[in-house]
Amino acid sequence: MSEIFFSLKKVHKVIQDNKPSKVCLVTSAKLLKELDWAIKELNIKKSQIILLPDGEKAKDWNEVEKLLLKFIGMGLDRKSLVIAFGGGTIGDSVGFATAIYLRGVNYIQIPTTLLAQVDSAHGGKTGINFKNYKNQIGSFHLPIVVIIDTRFVISLPREQIVSGLGEIIKAGFIKDVSILSLLKKHTISDLVKSTDLEKVIKKSIAVKEYYVGKDFEDNNLRSVLNVGHTFGHAIELKYKISHGMAVIMGVLQEFAFTEVQKLTKPSVRKNLENLLYQLGIEVNTKLKPDFRIITHDKKIIGNSIIFPVVESEGKVKLVNLPIHKFINK
Amino acid sequence: MSEIFFSLKKVHKVIQDNKPSKVCLVTSAKLLKELDWAIKELNIKKSQIILLPDGEKAKDWNEVEKLLLKFIGMGLDRKSLVIAFGGGTIGDSVGFATAIYLRGVNYIQIPTTLLAQVDSAHGGKTGINFKNYKNQIGSFHLPIVVIIDTRFVISLPREQIVSGLGEIIKAGFIKDVSILSLLKKHTISDLVKSTDLEKVIKKSIAVKEYYVGKDFEDNNLRSVLNVGHTFGHAIELKYKISHGMAVIMGVLQEFAFTEVQKLTKPSVRKNLENLLYQLGIEVNTKLKPDFRIITHDKKIIGNSIIFPVVESEGKVKLVNLPIHKFINK
Repeated sequence: MSEIFFSLKKVHKVIQDNKPSKVCLVTSAKLLKELDWAIKELNIKKSQIILLPDGEKAKDWNEVEKLLLKFIGMGLDRKSLVIAFGGGTIGDSVGFATAIYLRGVNYIQIPTTLLAQVDSAHGGKTGINFKNYKNQIGSFHLPIVVIIDTRFVISLPREQIVSGLGEIIKAGFIKDVSILSLLKKHTISDLVKSTDLEKVIKKSIAVKEYYVGKDFEDNNLRSVLNVGHTFGHAIELKYKISHGMAVIMGVLQEFAFTEVQKLTKPSVRKNLENLLYQLGIEVNTKLKPDFRIITHDKKIIGNSIIFPVVESEGKVKLVNLPIHKFINK
Repeated sequence: MSEIFFSLKKVHKVIQDNKPSKVCLVTSAKLLKELDWAIKELNIKKSQIILLPDGEKAKDWNEVEKLLLKFIGMGLDRKSLVIAFGGGTIGDSVGFATAIYLRGVNYIQIPTTLLAQVDSAHGGKTGINFKNYKNQIGSFHLPIVVIIDTRFVISLPREQIVSGLGEIIKAGFIKDVSILSLLKKHTISDLVKSTDLEKVIKKSIAVKEYYVGKDFEDNNLRSVLNVGHTFGHAIELKYKISHGMAVIMGVLQEFAFTEVQKLTKPSVRKNLENLLYQLGIEVNTKLKPDFRIITHDKKIIGNSIIFPVVESEGKVKLVNLPIHKFINK
């Protein structure tokens, strides 16, 4: 895995050590304005900045094409260094473009959303949307360094903080219960100001690193990280709500589902409900996934779905669940 | 490195072992017609075939885009298998497209030119032309298997055979002198019918594998394979002649150049001249490289070029040569 630093200023040291021929930073016009203080701290000049659109559009094939043309225009060579400064979609676009430009140039991830800080900036998996096919194209390309600055989190809209918390809570339930203990001390608004924020981010990353493990490519063990995502993804697609909120709903409903199958202790769901209440996250329990989406899922082998099940807090296993259990639910 | 088989029919065994969800074959309309007997032996149906243009156009970014759309249209998934059936440019295009489609699917190389059989089909290096920038985009993606059938060589135009022989001769001079002994027994026209052809192909691949070595990515040692290519590439660009002939001229002129620098024994160039004469390869010695191209080469560090020098047959070393030695030649 890539080295991780928790201070923006570390960039200067990384550049010093790496001696790149050129440095450029990729971000969006919105972030450039909102986080101008950070760009200043990074000591990046206007002429070194490339802009991508915000949101999902940033990781479109056509945007990658434009990005590659800008790399050429800036004269980037094999010894150049690209900084991805933004959320997950900017990270994906830069990760992929730097994977294929001259067969690979170095890049740094500076994730500016809580979700990207705990999840997408790590592990080197990039996904590009190609002609309306989501994540159809991609590569495995590790950043040389990931830099996390918790000051970005304070200025995020609440919805985006909830998004990141979804992954953090998941990490607590699948592996590291100390994350849950730390979260229990806070509401969202005081968590983002507390030093516990950096602690839960670090611990969540460690959980992801543990499961991604030494094996860089996709594997079975890694699919433990999909807790909440089978139901969550189906809810997200059906109701077009944010990924993070969908994952929180997904975790909650998956716990209820595997509780019925006698695979999960009832206290697990109860504890999650209490934690969400105390953080101040309200969950609409009426939104249910479309099970036809789930049963067309890529994780299906024969008549079963490989499903990650949380048995008790911090304890997870992969279970082969017959499809009919989902449909006749 | 990938496993190599010397029989077309091995494809059936590879498919049997690999159990792909789907198989498709990528080739050109010209090859489909000329080598229809081989497509039949491979047992590939028309509906499984995707066509690319011939020559350099096959590895254009826009063609990769069309290829990816056809992969989607055929419903290829992560467990599918793609066969690249053609020369180096088809191999590049398929190697790259399969590297990025769903973050990587398996592919087989069946190189149909002698040059691709001894060179580009091995090592996993792919290069794509992007908006007139040659090999600006690419990836490292090893085929699961390379299949070589010497029957393809017999039907190649003489120019393309010479192209492959350039790389084979180079392999003899930089490492394996037994290649030179085998070649010395033949003219081109009886070599292609002889069992020695398979032997020199095997030996040339072994030389490439030796230098590409365990380290998959580009490295210094690998640049020994550039013998003949520094001058050759500059000649090719200036006179628009075939790559293989340019490499043969490049090797010859580099030997003469390093002979003057007292780095290469005079017998080396003499032996190469004799070998070319006996094979029946006529070389125009009047075409000289443009040294401005060479001195703008990517292998330049400071005021020197890292130049692979053949000291005697089978013995090569990397030498730092000051640029002025080239310009004041």
